[in-house]
Amino acid sequence: MEEIPLAGWTQTVKRSALQDMLVAGSRPGVLSFALGLPASELFPTAAYSEAVTEVLATDTRALQYGPPFQPLKKHVVELMRLRGVVCREEQVFLTAGAQQGVNLLTRLLLDHGGQVLIEETAYTGVQQVLQLYQPEILTVPTDMETGMDVEAVEDLLRGGARPALIYTVTEGHNPLAVSLSREKRERLVELAEQYRVPIVEDDPYGFLYYGDTSIPPLRALNEQWVFYVGTFSKILAPALRVGWLIVPESLIPHLGIIKEASDIDMHTLNQRAISTYLDGGQLVEHTKMLRREYGQRRDAMCRALDKHFPAGTRWLKPTGGIFIWVELPGRVDTGELLKVAIETEQVAFIPGHAFSVNGDNAATNCMRLNFSHNSVERIEDGIERLARVLKNELADGSSALTE
Amino acid sequence: MEEIPLAGWTQTVKRSALQDMLVAGSRPGVLSFALGLPASELFPTAAYSEAVTEVLATDTRALQYGPPFQPLKKHVVELMRLRGVVCREEQVFLTAGAQQGVNLLTRLLLDHGGQVLIEETAYTGVQQVLQLYQPEILTVPTDMETGMDVEAVEDLLRGGARPALIYTVTEGHNPLAVSLSREKRERLVELAEQYRVPIVEDDPYGFLYYGDTSIPPLRALNEQWVFYVGTFSKILAPALRVGWLIVPESLIPHLGIIKEASDIDMHTLNQRAISTYLDGGQLVEHTKMLRREYGQRRDAMCRALDKHFPAGTRWLKPTGGIFIWVELPGRVDTGELLKVAIETEQVAFIPGHAFSVNGDNAATNCMRLNFSHNSVERIEDGIERLARVLKNELADGSSALTE
Repeated sequence: MEEIPLAGWTQTVKRSALQDMLVAGSRPGVLSFALGLPASELFPTAAYSEAVTEVLATDTRALQYGPPFQPLKKHVVELMRLRGVVCREEQVFLTAGAQQGVNLLTRLLLDHGGQVLIEETAYTGVQQVLQLYQPEILTVPTDMETGMDVEAVEDLLRGGARPALIYTVTEGHNPLAVSLSREKRERLVELAEQYRVPIVEDDPYGFLYYGDTSIPPLRALNEQWVFYVGTFSKILAPALRVGWLIVPESLIPHLGIIKEASDIDMHTLNQRAISTYLDGGQLVEHTKMLRREYGQRRDAMCRALDKHFPAGTRWLKPTGGIFIWVELPGRVDTGELLKVAIETEQVAFIPGHAFSVNGDNAATNCMRLNFSHNSVERIEDGIERLARVLKNELADGSSALTE
Repeated sequence: MEEIPLAGWTQTVKRSALQDMLVAGSRPGVLSFALGLPASELFPTAAYSEAVTEVLATDTRALQYGPPFQPLKKHVVELMRLRGVVCREEQVFLTAGAQQGVNLLTRLLLDHGGQVLIEETAYTGVQQVLQLYQPEILTVPTDMETGMDVEAVEDLLRGGARPALIYTVTEGHNPLAVSLSREKRERLVELAEQYRVPIVEDDPYGFLYYGDTSIPPLRALNEQWVFYVGTFSKILAPALRVGWLIVPESLIPHLGIIKEASDIDMHTLNQRAISTYLDGGQLVEHTKMLRREYGQRRDAMCRALDKHFPAGTRWLKPTGGIFIWVELPGRVDTGELLKVAIETEQVAFIPGHAFSVNGDNAATNCMRLNFSHNSVERIEDGIERLARVLKNELADGSSALTE
């Protein structure tokens, strides 16, 4: 067959490791800590089913094209208030989930070949979006206790860098699990304002914190330079594909153009059904329940790591989100370890290197573990199995060690 | 407020007229022929509601992230067979509707500033997608009886043009309502093959034909150079946001990357629910019913145009799709006419000029009328009202006449 001429990016951009993990880790019998999956058994399935049935029975416009569903924007404003953010319905832009939110904002801000600033270790989904623009990527390190190195951001900006956007996950960082400290939040927003650089604040886990409260997001500090990305994927269910942006009102028409080009920007049935579910007022209790359950799973995973993983393993108990970032002792290559783990103990995770933006040898001895998807029992079992693989590899000095 | 630095395209790209029409035409009391809306009362609402309820009650993965839903691909292969196309599940790529399909293919094929070939009068949705790439747009005319001017396509290609894609709607053209002749389909595909230029064949109305059969799409003639865009929006319901592409299997991984960047490429609940609805085997009867009903509406609109519109008005009875393209006599400016029509008779349509790719004075005396959304009675009433506006304007030579 003759070759079809494709756009330039197809020469360099590869499929994300997460998609491949989805395949490998979803094989029957594999106990997977790989993906950022919420717990299926905690979805409000019955209540959502009732909401869809009600919408379809009573709303003749439910299956028709129509503008974004206004009552849902009202609910979003209320949700954001719970998150410590004051905003207006006119600043809410509904999306098909957080990934689309990041994609739309990138299209809004970034020219082909432009400059962006992200952390050295970052969510693969944002890397996929950025790569299509073949941009100049500036990176900064992340401190495991306080988050993004904001001084490094300042150095870059003072040195003349003017990225089209700074991307970060402030709460329950994916994959590093850290939450950005209050001081750094304030400083980062000051820098954005001073240097006129917009921040894309990706906040899928903002409602999943395990202390009494969480720190308000960057958007609470500044409504001009922080573009907030929210989603129902982790607090309701991902297969609904509904999320939102909070942006300066002046940008909504531009976003409308990109969204229309992307997938028409007509409301979906799911927007109406979610809004009806929210009318019932059960979401606050639902997220409390999720925090309690996920908090227990987090604790179980930390205990199991403590008990079974070898001395010298390092991790921090996260205050939010759904991941733990584990740094293994010595020269373990987690990419190799994963293959052995799936083969011998049918247990999966994501190797740290998969999140490395610069593609060098960063994070090769690290792994990202998800604690939201599996039950406490399965977490205990899985971490023990993973520890067994690790001890074997460390003992016989085999393939999982870096040369 | 300080200005936020945005991507370059925001300087030139404007919101589409269709979005504004949606607002104006959706005011209570306005009888609108403007948008390409299917008939809400013909949606299989009860059957779909049952399908969703069943999926949520029986499938624990229904609300979770997961790969694109394979059984739906199987249904798509069967649907395409009914359309005269032989394809395999491995060539099916599921999308969030036809607009996303066109968007993904554009991202796959077109570099920023690259070259594309479309008709002088084209669907605004594709224009929105293309504009974001600031491309060189080559255009060809369209014959009202046989469709796209394929000789003009040949002239451009022979002259050295190598567009990244040729876009067309072969069946029930939007907005021109023509279906491409069999001879032209064959010739167009030969040209695509000879000059190695992919065709994006947008086929939202392929199942909505009003004779005994329809001509098979371009994809039936060539599986290497024709990329087919399908959707459930017009045969089931648009608010489900599910569609598909048929492409060479080698391109599926690339599309996966773009879709992942766009909105994660995880299946949606709607994919499962549609698949369950299709399992019931009712779609063939449903589309037959749609063809019968829409056929009657088309006939009613043609009769009403015949009866009420002034002498010299020109239109052709379409063999497929959901639009009639009307060319008015003399110097009527349909942009001006629309304002008067909404004001005085509360009736709306889309001015032909809104579809003009080159932005010159093309089609200023034309209008696109949709016949699928309104009942026969409302069509008769609305066309009579529209004719009244037109006669008044022609009689007093006022604002709706071009200077």
